[in-house]
Amino acid sequence: MIKVAILGASGYTGLELIRLLANHPHFKIEVITSRGLSGKTLGEVYGIPSPLGDLVFTEPNPEDIAKEVSAVFLCLPSGASSSLAEIFLKRGVKVVDLSADFRFKDEGLYKEAYGIDPPPRDLLLKAVYGLTEIYREEITKADLVGNPGCYPTSILLPLIPLFKEGLIEGDLVIADSKSGTSGAGRKADTYYSFCEVNEDFKPYKIASHRHTPEMEEKLAEFAKKQVRVVFTPHLLPLNRGITSTIYVRFRASLEKVHSYLSEFYRDSLFVEVLPLGRIPRLAEVRGTNLCKIALFEDKKRGMGIIVSALDNLVKGASGQAIQNLNLMFSLPEDAGLRLSPVLV
Amino acid sequence: MIKVAILGASGYTGLELIRLLANHPHFKIEVITSRGLSGKTLGEVYGIPSPLGDLVFTEPNPEDIAKEVSAVFLCLPSGASSSLAEIFLKRGVKVVDLSADFRFKDEGLYKEAYGIDPPPRDLLLKAVYGLTEIYREEITKADLVGNPGCYPTSILLPLIPLFKEGLIEGDLVIADSKSGTSGAGRKADTYYSFCEVNEDFKPYKIASHRHTPEMEEKLAEFAKKQVRVVFTPHLLPLNRGITSTIYVRFRASLEKVHSYLSEFYRDSLFVEVLPLGRIPRLAEVRGTNLCKIALFEDKKRGMGIIVSALDNLVKGASGQAIQNLNLMFSLPEDAGLRLSPVLV
Amino acid sequence: MIKVAILGASGYTGLELIRLLANHPHFKIEVITSRGLSGKTLGEVYGIPSPLGDLVFTEPNPEDIAKEVSAVFLCLPSGASSSLAEIFLKRGVKVVDLSADFRFKDEGLYKEAYGIDPPPRDLLLKAVYGLTEIYREEITKADLVGNPGCYPTSILLPLIPLFKEGLIEGDLVIADSKSGTSGAGRKADTYYSFCEVNEDFKPYKIASHRHTPEMEEKLAEFAKKQVRVVFTPHLLPLNRGITSTIYVRFRASLEKVHSYLSEFYRDSLFVEVLPLGRIPRLAEVRGTNLCKIALFEDKKRGMGIIVSALDNLVKGASGQAIQNLNLMFSLPEDAGLRLSPVLV
Amino acid sequence: MIKVAILGASGYTGLELIRLLANHPHFKIEVITSRGLSGKTLGEVYGIPSPLGDLVFTEPNPEDIAKEVSAVFLCLPSGASSSLAEIFLKRGVKVVDLSADFRFKDEGLYKEAYGIDPPPRDLLLKAVYGLTEIYREEITKADLVGNPGCYPTSILLPLIPLFKEGLIEGDLVIADSKSGTSGAGRKADTYYSFCEVNEDFKPYKIASHRHTPEMEEKLAEFAKKQVRVVFTPHLLPLNRGITSTIYVRFRASLEKVHSYLSEFYRDSLFVEVLPLGRIPRLAEVRGTNLCKIALFEDKKRGMGIIVSALDNLVKGASGQAIQNLNLMFSLPEDAGLRLSPVLV
Repeated sequence: MIKVAILGASGYTGLELIRLLANHPHFKIEVITSRGLSGKTLGEVYGIPSPLGDLVFTEPNPEDIAKEVSAVFLCLPSGASSSLAEIFLKRGVKVVDLSADFRFKDEGLYKEAYGIDPPPRDLLLKAVYGLTEIYREEITKADLVGNPGCYPTSILLPLIPLFKEGLIEGDLVIADSKSGTSGAGRKADTYYSFCEVNEDFKPYKIASHRHTPEMEEKLAEFAKKQVRVVFTPHLLPLNRGITSTIYVRFRASLEKVHSYLSEFYRDSLFVEVLPLGRIPRLAEVRGTNLCKIALFEDKKRGMGIIVSALDNLVKGASGQAIQNLNLMFSLPEDAGLRLSPVLV
Repeated sequence: MIKVAILGASGYTGLELIRLLANHPHFKIEVITSRGLSGKTLGEVYGIPSPLGDLVFTEPNPEDIAKEVSAVFLCLPSGASSSLAEIFLKRGVKVVDLSADFRFKDEGLYKEAYGIDPPPRDLLLKAVYGLTEIYREEITKADLVGNPGCYPTSILLPLIPLFKEGLIEGDLVIADSKSGTSGAGRKADTYYSFCEVNEDFKPYKIASHRHTPEMEEKLAEFAKKQVRVVFTPHLLPLNRGITSTIYVRFRASLEKVHSYLSEFYRDSLFVEVLPLGRIPRLAEVRGTNLCKIALFEDKKRGMGIIVSALDNLVKGASGQAIQNLNLMFSLPEDAGLRLSPVLV
Repeated sequence: MIKVAILGASGYTGLELIRLLANHPHFKIEVITSRGLSGKTLGEVYGIPSPLGDLVFTEPNPEDIAKEVSAVFLCLPSGASSSLAEIFLKRGVKVVDLSADFRFKDEGLYKEAYGIDPPPRDLLLKAVYGLTEIYREEITKADLVGNPGCYPTSILLPLIPLFKEGLIEGDLVIADSKSGTSGAGRKADTYYSFCEVNEDFKPYKIASHRHTPEMEEKLAEFAKKQVRVVFTPHLLPLNRGITSTIYVRFRASLEKVHSYLSEFYRDSLFVEVLPLGRIPRLAEVRGTNLCKIALFEDKKRGMGIIVSALDNLVKGASGQAIQNLNLMFSLPEDAGLRLSPVLV
Repeated sequence: MIKVAILGASGYTGLELIRLLANHPHFKIEVITSRGLSGKTLGEVYGIPSPLGDLVFTEPNPEDIAKEVSAVFLCLPSGASSSLAEIFLKRGVKVVDLSADFRFKDEGLYKEAYGIDPPPRDLLLKAVYGLTEIYREEITKADLVGNPGCYPTSILLPLIPLFKEGLIEGDLVIADSKSGTSGAGRKADTYYSFCEVNEDFKPYKIASHRHTPEMEEKLAEFAKKQVRVVFTPHLLPLNRGITSTIYVRFRASLEKVHSYLSEFYRDSLFVEVLPLGRIPRLAEVRGTNLCKIALFEDKKRGMGIIVSALDNLVKGASGQAIQNLNLMFSLPEDAGLRLSPVLV
């Protein structure tokens, strides 16, 4: 078994890593850290039964951890990963970072979006963007992966192949996304309190969300031109899941676009292009590492409509992180990720 | 007190009319009909206490009802209102119809959307479209009002003034709408069962919803040209409320557009154009007859973003129906509709 | 119009007072206070439209407030009301206190339950327990009312008449209660965050909730003996409502007990004893000042089962507070409280 | 791999069996039946991806099925299992029945509760009650198991050992249970429609639920006397989970009772007796085969309070069914059931 550590294990992405790795055939959780919960067990805090529940949260001491494990998942706030990653990489420990720190190639974009200095350039150059289906080759050889944002995963998976193939007209995309509340993380904040979210719905960070430059950078890479993404995230009164409804103009018939995209993802275990006419429900991806994509067309009005659905904690975060680490260790891509949807 | 009847009172819009009219200073519910519940009281079926709960559901006999009341609300399936409306109008009873039967001027559009024959032409010509703030003058003089669809109300209230004033470029609108489940009505259908809707989210009737031609007809009237609406409705796991996120290109600065729309609705009690930067929450309109509208701009990408929020059972249906009947009887527009939001 | 102030108006009970008083025919909100929101308007913070939305939160200066209003609602944490109440009463301002400070007659019980010193004895003696239907006469003459806890309201309304009439055997009651999350107040606490409450359910403060001594004191008063209440509160994943399922032994037939209780509340506008066999739903009391009570019997096992349902923010707090102030000003008991249930 | 069939696979317990068996190391789903969906694939109907999604629903022809599989799960309405079970058993196919048909030993009790004739006596005698931790030995040797009801599982697991050991005084138990809506099955019924369940809560079948005689029969067996269960089920607005709050009198100190029960379940992988003071949340058992039990005492009032929590679709139905079949094939009891909780 390959020993791994989870740094910042008490948040929702950390806990989801723990849930998913519990049954992984090759990775074994050796270390979990949390400054706030140091000294307590998973069982005490989250009611997880033994033996998994006996894992003890510790302080995040990278030098010590590096001696114990072969890989780490960093589930820390953006800005906190860079120095840790450096320590781990020097000691031969592979790193999958779930923050935004290693998602950008353009340091200026990062600084503009996050308001802090980017990691050192040599680290950024080493890092591979962990959108698995698109960067599979590079990830296989990588020691450092910057796991994508949850919204970008749901929007880039359908768009990158289509832009690359020249199947989208113009350079403007409208992405109207809706996310479950776990996407905001585990926070003591009345904005995310039950009575304020339940039975409510609203957009937020309209035209100003940090995932916009992340998406635009990646789309430009494949479109070979600047692409502009008008992005509106909304907060759904449910725990898990992102649905993105994306408006573009296709440069070919719906059937051709559909056939191309289906072919593109034919061998991808976790991206499913649905038969024409079928609509993806969040329930069908809940608890799984799947991203389901459906293509529609408003023929009369000349608009292509793409709907994608994924579980923000799995394919949008922890599941994709494991998928990436699988590749980094030359394991089967779906090791530990053969999950059936929790339909109800 | 002016006596009114509610035909088809056992569905959600009927029940909401009952809730709202319970405290109306001028209207008194005299008759409620329901084929399925005939003979039972409101108290028996819905637990509403006396005296309101003593109201008995009866069979919908229009001739008898016409003798007892001065106005009727028709909450019947589309296609069922036409013959009834005729009987009531002949006997001098005012009619607000909550189905789609009297929303269209173009008979062909109706037939295409609903697959049934439209009402007779003379009735259609008599009918006024009940989007109160836009057709206020005509409604005041009307005997027959076709109450708008819930989605069109949320989309037309911001768009009609802007198209009329020439503040929107081109002829294409993208409207991404999300509705609470009460919008589907009271149905025994596993698709709307609790476990299938709860913790789920999905679009439906993509590029094929019947509210699209309704919106396009009204927009064309004010834009003086054809307008195309790419419309995607989604089903929210909550009871009440519609949020529409609308993408257009403004032909003036955000400030100018905002100032124009604010001025346009300055004296409207139920349409509130929010200060720039503020986002409307469904909770803030829940239980009220308000439609809140917010304007945003993605300057970098040249896109205007309009967000509107309303309670689909109130401003989207029964509240607006009462607002219309108030005008039809020359009562204060907000009689019975001064409702504070149910914030939690 | 009688001018009133709400101190601590930014929490859920304060906001519910504002919602309910908005249409009160005799009370006018003149002052709302909140240390945290001082200087801001209701419109800015909660999106409530003008004119109500123009109300400005101020600092809670009792001397100034006493000059402006004839009555105050105190929505402050337990322990904070006593000195304020004294100031208001001295200046002839009537007080309804929604904290626990004036609920107890036995100072020791209060101190044990709340861990702080009780208000001065003369104030406690002045205070009337605001369970309206039971203490109606005293409330009518009172200047100071201690509004009951939400759980006690749901449990005492059925039990007090039955104990008083000797219809309950023994001295032990089991009350298994379930409350919506608004009962916990407006708090920045991960325990009450959306993702932790949604799709979850759990009891809390088992055998140790502070409402237990409050209930036992009142029951003893009417039973003329000590009564023990085994009380288990649970947290429901919904916003509003309390259902209490209460297990006792009846000393008469179900029909007799039912007939007595129905008669007892015959003239009470807000307590409804349901016909035998009918089960109260939270939806039927949502948004109203009703408490619905149903009586059942497990004949084979010799157990009486009482189910009561109310809206914790209305009859369980702010609605009952207004009902009390109505009586204190000799107004109709239901002034401002004729509310139809929000069935969906 | 051992081939199994699921009859009645389109309901919630059938679908949960499919979800859980997808990763079972020894069982392989060979046949799924559904009259309504015959001819369709799992993928078409429920969006489950290949290869699992390629399974085709067929008509339930027991003779044909018996040739293909070694075991069947019957997920049919009560009354429908008996003749099918007979056919399968004759052909050497093991049967786990998830209906009530094989839960009773007393035919009269079954007939009274379900209003239909019980299965033939010889079948009833063959059948073992599938409360795994209690009847483990018998199940290991059984060919026919009657899987327990969801409520009884949550109530009997704590009570049977305590009654058996004489740790409970008297013969009366009060069980106040709350269940998620999936417990009602997949039904087109407005009573279970989203808008009627969401934001609502209510008891149902008070003192008349069919699970009561099931519990009383099993308790009597271990208590060696008649035990009466006052049972009140309630409907929770969430998908999965049952919490039972049980009131009894302990005949020993809380510590002793706790220590006995902890010891009793020490080697049981799926029943966890929590440390004193800890409260079980539904989130902590969601998606798992766990039943968590906590013991409390209201010392002042002389009452023991037991709280148990489980996932009604897993330990309350399909998970326990697999646990039983594991034993019937001498497989590890937790094969395919090592599941981490879906905490959010």
